[in-house]
Amino acid sequence: MPPERSPGDEGTHTVEVSAEQAARETALVEQVVASFEGAESPRLKQLMQALTRHLHAFAREVRLTEEEWGGAIDFLTRAGHITTETRQEFVLLSDTLGLSMQTIAINNEAYQDATEATVFGPFFVEGAPRIDNGADLAFGAAGQPCWVEGRVTGTDGNPVSGARIEVWEADEDGFYDVQYDDGRTAARAHLFSDQDGTYRFWGITPTPYPIPYDGPVGEMLQAVGRSPMRTSHLHFMVSAEGSRTLVTHIFVDGCDYLDRDSVFGVKESLIKDFVLQPPGTPTPDGRDIGEREWASVRFDIVLAPA
Amino acid sequence: MPPERSPGDEGTHTVEVSAEQAARETALVEQVVASFEGAESPRLKQLMQALTRHLHAFAREVRLTEEEWGGAIDFLTRAGHITTETRQEFVLLSDTLGLSMQTIAINNEAYQDATEATVFGPFFVEGAPRIDNGADLAFGAAGQPCWVEGRVTGTDGNPVSGARIEVWEADEDGFYDVQYDDGRTAARAHLFSDQDGTYRFWGITPTPYPIPYDGPVGEMLQAVGRSPMRTSHLHFMVSAEGSRTLVTHIFVDGCDYLDRDSVFGVKESLIKDFVLQPPGTPTPDGRDIGEREWASVRFDIVLAPA
Ligand SMILES: [Cu+2]
Ligand SMILES: [Fe+3]
Ligand SMILES: [Fe+3]
Repeated sequence: MPPERSPGDEGTHTVEVSAEQAARETALVEQVVASFEGAESPRLKQLMQALTRHLHAFAREVRLTEEEWGGAIDFLTRAGHITTETRQEFVLLSDTLGLSMQTIAINNEAYQDATEATVFGPFFVEGAPRIDNGADLAFGAAGQPCWVEGRVTGTDGNPVSGARIEVWEADEDGFYDVQYDDGRTAARAHLFSDQDGTYRFWGITPTPYPIPYDGPVGEMLQAVGRSPMRTSHLHFMVSAEGSRTLVTHIFVDGCDYLDRDSVFGVKESLIKDFVLQPPGTPTPDGRDIGEREWASVRFDIVLAPA
Repeated sequence: MPPERSPGDEGTHTVEVSAEQAARETALVEQVVASFEGAESPRLKQLMQALTRHLHAFAREVRLTEEEWGGAIDFLTRAGHITTETRQEFVLLSDTLGLSMQTIAINNEAYQDATEATVFGPFFVEGAPRIDNGADLAFGAAGQPCWVEGRVTGTDGNPVSGARIEVWEADEDGFYDVQYDDGRTAARAHLFSDQDGTYRFWGITPTPYPIPYDGPVGEMLQAVGRSPMRTSHLHFMVSAEGSRTLVTHIFVDGCDYLDRDSVFGVKESLIKDFVLQPPGTPTPDGRDIGEREWASVRFDIVLAPA
């Protein structure tokens, strides 16, 4: 019986080496795999053995040179050194290799009409301020005012009240608060859905922004001719007792980068119509925002059961 | 025609998911692979596409959880932060996953009777002092005196004169000089082979030592029940014009850890007889080392052509 194929390795290629060379390389793989036999946790054993097989298969397939190996060590080292509490280069690496999105896909299997998940990204911060429904979470962040409203329900159609809704976004210059040096908290907050599942808040209209590209991940993107831009989006994390926590974004329909999000996060169902409102258009809550253009968007959220 | 298998993925397993889920996951892999199409360097394109396939295949095969993904990000972050000029956690990670040794195997294919290569390790330092043939490279490092001699030849049997021989080793407490805080240089040097290809020096008898295990790699080894110990060894790097540079060790026959080197570096041909010499035995060069036991070993080096 032929050995089973691992999923997703279709399209990889076998390289010609001498039988003795191949035997040596295979023997080494098996030696490393065997070294994990003593792991107390069967899951850890499985993870390390599978990691070993795929990592060695990669190196053998491409005939990784020592110089390339050194380049990879250097890349990881620089990624480690640029990483701080607020800059996570390894998350960016995972994001730009599509691994983050694949992990999301694996862990959020389609469930009826539950809202689709997308990447978490590196800019979520624990402890963002709580706002009341209808309040403004911009906290002075520059950008066009944007009214966001919707309703949280379960896949059974019943409203979910008291769902915790975390929202975070970049300002119109493309920066999250934590990317500034001044310790500001802006364009992020959490709120809770009302008794009938509805929620509403003022934020700012999302604009495209680059992921941080002044580090090794940025160099990689440049070397392969990829843009660091993310499709305009607003982050949500929605949690409620008895429901699967949803981490997602909504994306702005018509954004230039819809088809080449640098982290592969866009899903058709998450593209929303952000309706531009001419200056002077009355606001939904009567708020006076002066003679400015603003936008509004509706995002109804359907949570899968936990 | 069935797709080719990549080498070394034998033994991986396919996981049952719904056809729609599998299609989604495969589509994402292909989207990421396609994003590298624009790379100017065909080699970089090949590397990134193969890395993407194997990385995604790993995540899909094990059904990587978001918590495990987070654990991996945390692991890499901690590895990055513990890494300094003299502590290279990513090299340790590569070593303990056998990737370093696999890279060595790929790049040093068997060539006639050329001396086999093994891992470089994280403790080589550029600019080690030059010593004359027959001198002592211990520079005060604690350990049993050990006389090392041999001859450098090509695979044609002709002596290689002027070969640059870099040697480095741990002291009897298991530490390299760079692991001390005091900036010492000890138990490392370079020398050159004589006109007839011979070389000789005093070093110290290698003893087993653990790779640094106070970081994430050490935690991993502990979690899987592996020892951090390296089989007793002496590092060599030998280079000469027209020859393939050889990075290798010699290992001490009889060492307790011969069969479970933490970095998979041991090769039968590199295990050498370190002959113990009782106190008072005359030294090869007449040096007076007092009433101490010492050792001697012979290591003839055969360089493949470049
Ligand atoms: Cu693979
Ligand atoms: Fe974002
Ligand atoms: Fe060593």
